[in-house]
Amino acid sequence: MNALNIPDTNLKRIVIIGCGFGGLQLAKKLAKQAYQVVMLDKHNYHTFQPLLYQVATAGLEPDSIAYPIRRIFKGQKNFYFRLAAAQKVEAPQNVLHTNIGPLQYDYLVIATGSTTNYFGLKGVAQKGLPMKNIPEALNLRSLILENFEKAALSHELSDRQRLMNFVIVGAGPTGVELAGALAELKTHVLPNDYPDLDFRQMSIHLIEAMDKVLPPMSDTASKKSLKYLTQLGVQVWTDTKVANYDGKDVYTDKKTLPASTLIWAAGVKGASIEGLNEQGEMGGGRYLVNEFNQVGSHQNIFAIGDVAAMQASEYPKGHPMLAQVAMQQGQHLAKNFKAWAQNKKPQNFKYKDPGTMATVGRNKAVVDLGTLRFGGFAGWLVWMFVHLMSLVGFKNKAVVLTNWVLSYFSYDKKMRLIIRPFQRQNFSD
Amino acid sequence: MNALNIPDTNLKRIVIIGCGFGGLQLAKKLAKQAYQVVMLDKHNYHTFQPLLYQVATAGLEPDSIAYPIRRIFKGQKNFYFRLAAAQKVEAPQNVLHTNIGPLQYDYLVIATGSTTNYFGLKGVAQKGLPMKNIPEALNLRSLILENFEKAALSHELSDRQRLMNFVIVGAGPTGVELAGALAELKTHVLPNDYPDLDFRQMSIHLIEAMDKVLPPMSDTASKKSLKYLTQLGVQVWTDTKVANYDGKDVYTDKKTLPASTLIWAAGVKGASIEGLNEQGEMGGGRYLVNEFNQVGSHQNIFAIGDVAAMQASEYPKGHPMLAQVAMQQGQHLAKNFKAWAQNKKPQNFKYKDPGTMATVGRNKAVVDLGTLRFGGFAGWLVWMFVHLMSLVGFKNKAVVLTNWVLSYFSYDKKMRLIIRPFQRQNFSD
Repeated sequence: MNALNIPDTNLKRIVIIGCGFGGLQLAKKLAKQAYQVVMLDKHNYHTFQPLLYQVATAGLEPDSIAYPIRRIFKGQKNFYFRLAAAQKVEAPQNVLHTNIGPLQYDYLVIATGSTTNYFGLKGVAQKGLPMKNIPEALNLRSLILENFEKAALSHELSDRQRLMNFVIVGAGPTGVELAGALAELKTHVLPNDYPDLDFRQMSIHLIEAMDKVLPPMSDTASKKSLKYLTQLGVQVWTDTKVANYDGKDVYTDKKTLPASTLIWAAGVKGASIEGLNEQGEMGGGRYLVNEFNQVGSHQNIFAIGDVAAMQASEYPKGHPMLAQVAMQQGQHLAKNFKAWAQNKKPQNFKYKDPGTMATVGRNKAVVDLGTLRFGGFAGWLVWMFVHLMSLVGFKNKAVVLTNWVLSYFSYDKKMRLIIRPFQRQNFSD
Repeated sequence: MNALNIPDTNLKRIVIIGCGFGGLQLAKKLAKQAYQVVMLDKHNYHTFQPLLYQVATAGLEPDSIAYPIRRIFKGQKNFYFRLAAAQKVEAPQNVLHTNIGPLQYDYLVIATGSTTNYFGLKGVAQKGLPMKNIPEALNLRSLILENFEKAALSHELSDRQRLMNFVIVGAGPTGVELAGALAELKTHVLPNDYPDLDFRQMSIHLIEAMDKVLPPMSDTASKKSLKYLTQLGVQVWTDTKVANYDGKDVYTDKKTLPASTLIWAAGVKGASIEGLNEQGEMGGGRYLVNEFNQVGSHQNIFAIGDVAAMQASEYPKGHPMLAQVAMQQGQHLAKNFKAWAQNKKPQNFKYKDPGTMATVGRNKAVVDLGTLRFGGFAGWLVWMFVHLMSLVGFKNKAVVLTNWVLSYFSYDKKMRLIIRPFQRQNFSD
């Protein structure tokens, strides 16, 4: 028996680090194959990250977008979950070191996803807020609500405005969706809660370095979402770069915005781990992998999803860091493991782009499906359906649908609870 | 303007400390009266404490049993909420000191409820766990789940057993309900999650100093609940007193039980605040109040609910510390405020006992309604109906009902999420 109490059997052991979209799909598809599967994760649940912004804005609770890993794999033979953080790979010995001890592997799959990238902006890293996991989203929710409690106590107009101003950096789907949700709170929810505050003093700024919102999407989607955001009262600043943040003012290359809260949704990097020198050749913490997701020259070490960069003709810098890529790579790698077990040839990975979408506010979205581009209410219905179906588990689907239906008819179904006060703390580690 | 930014008007100001069952009822009933009402609470939500044990055992999420205070009082005129902790009363000056500054009052209502009472047992206070508010319930949930994660790593049988043993002290409704919920987890949920653990090694002990479970209830209820608990596999130790706990073993006057987790549900005391010398005459941190809930000789300082002890012929030591007493005292005090405003005579408070009940496991309960005493499934239906109806808000009722219906048909709808790791921390302050 090893430190992690995993039985040593005749089966080859695949160790998967991370139960995100990629790791989850891989482990599921390995269910009936002749491998022992060991899944490690820092959390005991899988997180549906696309809806984190709804947790941050009190529209959904954590249990709606999280699902216990042990329950997902209930009854799966030769499967072991351990609540653990990977620390270092010792490739020559085939050993992974974790915070609960070392573990020997036959195959190692790094599916650690991505982490917030501040691009060297120290002030932003210290005073800005990331939103990459549930504790961070809940922390952000507490801060937003505490800001208004503080504003209600403030005698100074400038203090009050600063507390009521929110700057979101990065107009990708996360930034756009968060800005829309905050705008709905401003218009329909908060004025009832804080009758003594004047909500004309509240501003939501969305800053983007590129020349349009939703840069990876079509021009149609980009223009539509800008229109929706503007209608909701969000102030959009494209072609604008953040230079610094001191917790009070956001300094950009164009203007300075007073704001107690800066939410950083402008960049991620691969969450690579120690011990593999081949990492980072693509930059941004991603492992350079071949078409079988093998890392560098290692035959038995793989990386999938955000932490992997596979050069393909359409994607010379690696695939976009999206849930869909991770899921398809996880599923594909499972097939290759099956092929290897049967001494067959593995297949090259090929990404099938299923389209992208983003929601803006309560009942609008923009959708790019190949050449089909649409938005508005129809887009929102598609967005809602796709996200609902992607959630793990019947109860989560039921609870989220109930929440969304209730919210559609009344804005005021949001539960604005400060369960734990805001803490300036790094929840990623 | 004062430090709390409450406007000074011609209306008399009533300051209510605490939005529990008593404070909530009082403030609601004051809605149309000619007073300014200022509500202070350490949390921004009202907690439905009777269901805390379901949050601790992952059956419900916080948003199901909590409700934002600002939303409860949405639109109520002359009402102000402040997220604040009361620190000290300066009665001669009619000033309440809080962590956000001092506030002048015309009337002060102390509705601070109760806090865990360890009766001087230092080891228990240091190593045992209370369950009086949502952060504590969530912390307990994390610990329970982390214990099993640790047990799965343990090579030693004795370590494993200790991690899988749970000692609950106090067989009042909270202790009984918690023991029942843990027993259901043991039988129906955890063995699926931890196939490598042997659940015959898991024990749930319920310790009670009195000679029966549910001491305040009828003998019928007591015997029935003992039967249900035994059927669920809970080991009940009546007539047994806890002497010490060191985090590893629970020492009682009869035997020693190895357990990493001791949950203390054996006692509470009034959460009195500094500055009033008349407090504590009844012992246990409760303010001695007259039949109008006035504290000592103060005409304009009141205490209601758990923190108040009003001597009545049937209750020489004060009323029981129950939600119903607090609610009735809150409603009654609102009526008396109306009388005072109209220069009428106030009425004496008289408690109407609506009965007591406790649930044991998934579908059984015991109910005492005057001379009517019943249990089993019928009792559970009554318990469920009464608790559902007592929840604040339509969405909470809907979500809790959905959860309970799903749980009735499948035990496995519980979301066993460790959102924040267990911390040894006092969440009451």
